[in-house]
Amino acid sequence: MKQFFPGIKKIRYEGPDSKNPLAFKHYNPNKKIGKKTMKEHLRFSVAFWHTFKGTGSDPFGGPVYDRPWDIANDCMQQAENTMRAAFEFFTKLGVPFYCWHDRDIAPEADNLKETNARLKNIVNLAKKLQHDTGVKLLWGTSNCFSHPRFTHGAGTNPDAHVFAYAASQIKMAMECTKQLGGANYVFWGGREGYSNLLNTNMKHEQDQMARFLEMAVEHKKKIGFKGTLLIEPKPKEPTKHQYDYDAATVLSFLHKYGLEDEYKLNIEANHATLAGHTFEHDLTVASIDGKLGSIDANRGDYLLGWDTDLFPSDIYSATFAMMVIINQRGLGTGGINFDAKVRRGSFDEKDLFHAHIGGMDSFARGLKIAHKIKNDGVLANFVSERYKSFKSGIGRKVMRGETNFRELEKYILKKGEPKKISGREEMLENLINSYI
Amino acid sequence: MKQFFPGIKKIRYEGPDSKNPLAFKHYNPNKKIGKKTMKEHLRFSVAFWHTFKGTGSDPFGGPVYDRPWDIANDCMQQAENTMRAAFEFFTKLGVPFYCWHDRDIAPEADNLKETNARLKNIVNLAKKLQHDTGVKLLWGTSNCFSHPRFTHGAGTNPDAHVFAYAASQIKMAMECTKQLGGANYVFWGGREGYSNLLNTNMKHEQDQMARFLEMAVEHKKKIGFKGTLLIEPKPKEPTKHQYDYDAATVLSFLHKYGLEDEYKLNIEANHATLAGHTFEHDLTVASIDGKLGSIDANRGDYLLGWDTDLFPSDIYSATFAMMVIINQRGLGTGGINFDAKVRRGSFDEKDLFHAHIGGMDSFARGLKIAHKIKNDGVLANFVSERYKSFKSGIGRKVMRGETNFRELEKYILKKGEPKKISGREEMLENLINSYI
Amino acid sequence: MKQFFPGIKKIRYEGPDSKNPLAFKHYNPNKKIGKKTMKEHLRFSVAFWHTFKGTGSDPFGGPVYDRPWDIANDCMQQAENTMRAAFEFFTKLGVPFYCWHDRDIAPEADNLKETNARLKNIVNLAKKLQHDTGVKLLWGTSNCFSHPRFTHGAGTNPDAHVFAYAASQIKMAMECTKQLGGANYVFWGGREGYSNLLNTNMKHEQDQMARFLEMAVEHKKKIGFKGTLLIEPKPKEPTKHQYDYDAATVLSFLHKYGLEDEYKLNIEANHATLAGHTFEHDLTVASIDGKLGSIDANRGDYLLGWDTDLFPSDIYSATFAMMVIINQRGLGTGGINFDAKVRRGSFDEKDLFHAHIGGMDSFARGLKIAHKIKNDGVLANFVSERYKSFKSGIGRKVMRGETNFRELEKYILKKGEPKKISGREEMLENLINSYI
Amino acid sequence: MKQFFPGIKKIRYEGPDSKNPLAFKHYNPNKKIGKKTMKEHLRFSVAFWHTFKGTGSDPFGGPVYDRPWDIANDCMQQAENTMRAAFEFFTKLGVPFYCWHDRDIAPEADNLKETNARLKNIVNLAKKLQHDTGVKLLWGTSNCFSHPRFTHGAGTNPDAHVFAYAASQIKMAMECTKQLGGANYVFWGGREGYSNLLNTNMKHEQDQMARFLEMAVEHKKKIGFKGTLLIEPKPKEPTKHQYDYDAATVLSFLHKYGLEDEYKLNIEANHATLAGHTFEHDLTVASIDGKLGSIDANRGDYLLGWDTDLFPSDIYSATFAMMVIINQRGLGTGGINFDAKVRRGSFDEKDLFHAHIGGMDSFARGLKIAHKIKNDGVLANFVSERYKSFKSGIGRKVMRGETNFRELEKYILKKGEPKKISGREEMLENLINSYI
Repeated sequence: MKQFFPGIKKIRYEGPDSKNPLAFKHYNPNKKIGKKTMKEHLRFSVAFWHTFKGTGSDPFGGPVYDRPWDIANDCMQQAENTMRAAFEFFTKLGVPFYCWHDRDIAPEADNLKETNARLKNIVNLAKKLQHDTGVKLLWGTSNCFSHPRFTHGAGTNPDAHVFAYAASQIKMAMECTKQLGGANYVFWGGREGYSNLLNTNMKHEQDQMARFLEMAVEHKKKIGFKGTLLIEPKPKEPTKHQYDYDAATVLSFLHKYGLEDEYKLNIEANHATLAGHTFEHDLTVASIDGKLGSIDANRGDYLLGWDTDLFPSDIYSATFAMMVIINQRGLGTGGINFDAKVRRGSFDEKDLFHAHIGGMDSFARGLKIAHKIKNDGVLANFVSERYKSFKSGIGRKVMRGETNFRELEKYILKKGEPKKISGREEMLENLINSYI
Repeated sequence: MKQFFPGIKKIRYEGPDSKNPLAFKHYNPNKKIGKKTMKEHLRFSVAFWHTFKGTGSDPFGGPVYDRPWDIANDCMQQAENTMRAAFEFFTKLGVPFYCWHDRDIAPEADNLKETNARLKNIVNLAKKLQHDTGVKLLWGTSNCFSHPRFTHGAGTNPDAHVFAYAASQIKMAMECTKQLGGANYVFWGGREGYSNLLNTNMKHEQDQMARFLEMAVEHKKKIGFKGTLLIEPKPKEPTKHQYDYDAATVLSFLHKYGLEDEYKLNIEANHATLAGHTFEHDLTVASIDGKLGSIDANRGDYLLGWDTDLFPSDIYSATFAMMVIINQRGLGTGGINFDAKVRRGSFDEKDLFHAHIGGMDSFARGLKIAHKIKNDGVLANFVSERYKSFKSGIGRKVMRGETNFRELEKYILKKGEPKKISGREEMLENLINSYI
Repeated sequence: MKQFFPGIKKIRYEGPDSKNPLAFKHYNPNKKIGKKTMKEHLRFSVAFWHTFKGTGSDPFGGPVYDRPWDIANDCMQQAENTMRAAFEFFTKLGVPFYCWHDRDIAPEADNLKETNARLKNIVNLAKKLQHDTGVKLLWGTSNCFSHPRFTHGAGTNPDAHVFAYAASQIKMAMECTKQLGGANYVFWGGREGYSNLLNTNMKHEQDQMARFLEMAVEHKKKIGFKGTLLIEPKPKEPTKHQYDYDAATVLSFLHKYGLEDEYKLNIEANHATLAGHTFEHDLTVASIDGKLGSIDANRGDYLLGWDTDLFPSDIYSATFAMMVIINQRGLGTGGINFDAKVRRGSFDEKDLFHAHIGGMDSFARGLKIAHKIKNDGVLANFVSERYKSFKSGIGRKVMRGETNFRELEKYILKKGEPKKISGREEMLENLINSYI
Repeated sequence: MKQFFPGIKKIRYEGPDSKNPLAFKHYNPNKKIGKKTMKEHLRFSVAFWHTFKGTGSDPFGGPVYDRPWDIANDCMQQAENTMRAAFEFFTKLGVPFYCWHDRDIAPEADNLKETNARLKNIVNLAKKLQHDTGVKLLWGTSNCFSHPRFTHGAGTNPDAHVFAYAASQIKMAMECTKQLGGANYVFWGGREGYSNLLNTNMKHEQDQMARFLEMAVEHKKKIGFKGTLLIEPKPKEPTKHQYDYDAATVLSFLHKYGLEDEYKLNIEANHATLAGHTFEHDLTVASIDGKLGSIDANRGDYLLGWDTDLFPSDIYSATFAMMVIINQRGLGTGGINFDAKVRRGSFDEKDLFHAHIGGMDSFARGLKIAHKIKNDGVLANFVSERYKSFKSGIGRKVMRGETNFRELEKYILKKGEPKKISGREEMLENLINSYI
């Protein structure tokens, strides 16, 4: 079998002191952290689009990579080569999962029938490769944003014809996901938003979207797909006002249309920060409502105003994310998908390995640190102590709904001014540093 | 009676060609625009805090204004003078409404009992002045953010003692609002948020807040207050992650805790833009859910990252806001409150007039333009035409919930690719300019 | 001759009351505003790249336009058709100027020799069309950022081989500009910056750039090109830290390397705002140093963090820009180039007309307003009065360098505290509104 | 002698495993890192204003701290207590330096004469305490921004009277700095900028500023002050467009007015990030011009748009800063001043220790890491290798100014296309992580 990464051997764990850039320093898949192995905790996934279909293009220049899997003249041969290259990569890297959009793995044809035939073809190959390697599908999704037809939206397009097209695509993508045993199905509404309020009926578009998601639930049940349905919030890109701005906005939408029991969230680091939140904030917003289903791990550049999709190399961020995940006892059917891309100038296939190794090591380190923080209990005790006044007396009555404004006024008239208690932010930040 | 603005006469409408800076060029209160007068449409309100208690201080320097109503040595005499100055201002400016925080109109004393006594005193004076002048209270609210006790939050404070204090304040402020015939009562949760996730239990704090708002509803009913309860969203200030980030976030919260029938929103321009939206976006988000209750009119500086509270002088923004308001047939019990302040270097009392005249003229102009756009129907027809495919055939079935993914796939397999239809953004922007 | 815009006639001035979207409401080219016609004041230019080579692609989707000039199979036939379409557009729109990058007008071949031959070919065609129509070249420039070779920079590339390539391109582009009688030559250093400080020697790169610009001056003189050399500042895009961040940064660079007499600036609205300034701020920074050479007119979206290149439809911004330009008595060899693109969903060729008409009308309106403001003198008098203390006494001594800290201390010990004088910002903003 | 921090003992180094929050884990002052001790490398300084005069107030609430040194009724007794508390703090913390604004250490009186007398008084006390403890003054500066008189600027005020006042203040502050043996004198032009371009003559204001800085140089020489003059860049705060936006802008100003030999820069982390740069970017911009004189260490919040002045606890940022400092062989007369403040809710004096310990440990760790990176040479070698093509052949001729566009074109016509070489950003980021 042709090798697409001939110079690269399986990436091994060599420990923190290794100088080998093609080895893990922290990710040791079968090492137990608490009751689960690192592999079980982290459920790493490679994103097919960035790693195998990424070209390095940006708004100021076209493709720059010369990938060996892109050489074939026939587009379906290319697709097949790409899928084989991907599984070679997954295996050498040692990740248990991958993710795709329908159009990543098989190119669109002139009509839907032929497009679907191509997709089925490649899905059959993927199924075989999954079986051969043990690598699994974390989630599938449909690209309803790149084709010109989706310029004004997919589910929220003012043209019902386009709405129907999107429905057809997602129907097929969900069926393919089921065929491959995908653990989740993701909705990222790339063009669900508006560019200009002047030509937009926002209420109508939101009603459309709700109808779309209802049909998706119905179809899921119809075909017996057991995975989790996930919505991925994102603000600002590509259209100006994306409807799925952030976790809270999506939750509001789900509540309004009675869909909250059918969908969870896939939270991406860089999407959270573009919405003005920290990654851990949006993870927490989703988690406290029992809606944190999966994560897209990457890193934004706070000084740039778009989704840079950098590989997640920041140990602080990985630690804070793992603290939320450990706190809710894992991601369930979800995982940590590297929705990240190498920089335009990282021309070599080897750079793909550097990037993923860095991301996996960062989250492995985050896991170890978060686990230690949890085990030591210092931080959790501090927080628990901080809220203890709500566990007895007037505070307990508040939480139980057993008091009212009049009683609280009497309480204050008697008790007077509360004490000022330090929040100890600086001490706690030092504490975190002592674990890193 | 002492005059606080001795050099200023009642501001009159003199029309667009007037060169008199102390005259209205566009706001002509009794002129009918459609079926209502400008005064009825716009329901202007002056914000007591900025206009009478504003000092010009900023993080780099203290108070700079020498206001004649601040001269008295006794703090209650000062409060009384300030209230009298305010009504002189309202009358000379010709606004029908004003708004206050409890602590703006009467200074806090050493204990709640005395503080409440002071407040009652001033409320009695305000009642008399309202009666004498016909000026009304648009809304009251309680300042639960300035005092040191609220550093870690009011309703979301980790200390139940502080929670109780906030409840006591809001109880009294709501009662005073009722006494003055206030049309609404506003919650702006200045310190409801967190500074650092490390010391925070977000779920607990949100549960606390929900309990707080439930008790507020109960108290409202108990005392027979008939006004609308409004929540004002704001991101980022003063604490890092404010819980009431934007309209969608507040709506999500209200849905989650079953409070959606009890509260509407008070949308502020600069809060919307700090959250990454346009003013008209957040107005629309609230409006399409029937939740747009009132607005705080001001202007942010897009190049600065904090609430600049500039007076609203941008005609585009005023026009877009009025388009939303006209579309929902007015603000009901709400109004347009100038939550805006003169610049630090606008030292003179006269500058307060310049500022309000500019804001009122901008919105009056926005009203006239929005009304003309609505009447001409060109824009509305364009939008209606754009969505017409949902009024018949497959689109109609979508909106009625009478179809599914399989039928939509069949539709596409038969119909093929949709047409590309221009969204005409540039043409529509030119159209708007032709009205200005 | 084939028509590329068959349904569009020459755009005419029909005045503010016209309802015809394909007519000018304000731009009346031969109407005198002061001593110059509108055409002479505004010197409008169409940007070849956006208007004829723009595809509507964005980071989330590929090309969407079906342009009749793109139909030919042969790439040079396509280039020729595009140039002919462009001149048809210029003529129908009635703009006196256009601008290009070398690679816009002729596609790159496999080697520089052939690439240059193609370019010469098209330049000959352009020369003929310029002669036939009277349309002139405002400026030429070289695209040293799109090709993969420029990924790590052109003049600042760590590889001298790439540096040499960039030099070769710019040599040729400058010669073509001269051949077409271009009034200016522009440097926009698209890839001059760094993506990551870890792999960068900033000092070396800046020294490289200085050498590059010195050679450009030498070559200009060598070939006898009489146009102005312009540098276009831009922050953040495409590489993280662009060296030509804003006007002040470029001026600092020019001073440091003694190049300040050889270059002026081409200021773009959206580049200024991405750098944290208003358009009029950066125009003023350049203008007060005698370095404002030309402008790229467009509009950013303050809520988005990238160069949106919207057409300039904001009348405030156009007014403020024209105030700076009038103040320095015009742009000399420069002009107002629409470095702007229609939105992705503006699929039709007609939208290109809507967009340019809107931009031209906005600046025409800005010109009329700015001229009236200047003529009335109210604003200028206010400013002059504000600084009058520097025209006599101690202020005059300060400006003449005839005093020192000791004398100033004595002055204060004698004179005491200065008065507080209002800056009247609100009044002045109302004044501007009264002109709009 | 009264103790202001009675419960706190001298902070000791206890190493990374210590659980004592009031001990250093990394800062070991006399430990050698290379040829210098940590103390000599880092030259830590405490900022008098934040640590002793900070009140915890923010735009939404007033002072919250109850400091024992604020108790005295007499303002000069308070100033004396504060100075004594400061030296107790410096000594217990073990920092070698501190910094002040004139108005931090002695309160302003009704007139300049009395104000200066107060200042002299306190300076005498400081001199004695410096002598007793060995703590030194890193720099002094004058607060020409808080008083109402400076609302429209100090050196750039439109009123010459205010200009003179600022000159008087700075004269005295510079003399006091000299008296205390200050190693530098800093200019932070808090109000040097404009709020509104409509009322501003930017050219005039910049000319004023240049005159001001010329007089400062003259006065420095006159009194024989040997310290370094430093300008601190800052964008956006407090006035909208600050003239000293960032390092490049200040360098441009200095070049334009021929002042570049007289001033260096004091670069602050949070000011750099507000200007759209990383801290290390602005440090490098200053350093490569030989102008990096000192630093203000703190941390911004990238999600907030103002100067949060958080204590610097991010190890990445401290490492990158120390890499620049080590690279230029130290800060000379400068140091690392903690221009940082505890959060509003950090009510206790103990929090001041937590905060500074965290900051000092972070920079100590950054120093150790940066030193190791430097010593290992891997990164430096990578960068050197990357630019090697400029050390011979055509590259060498470029850097020596011995070639031109024609020769470079010939070179390319012969050599053809350059190779694509990976910039290895991901690998280098992993490398940095391996040192942390």
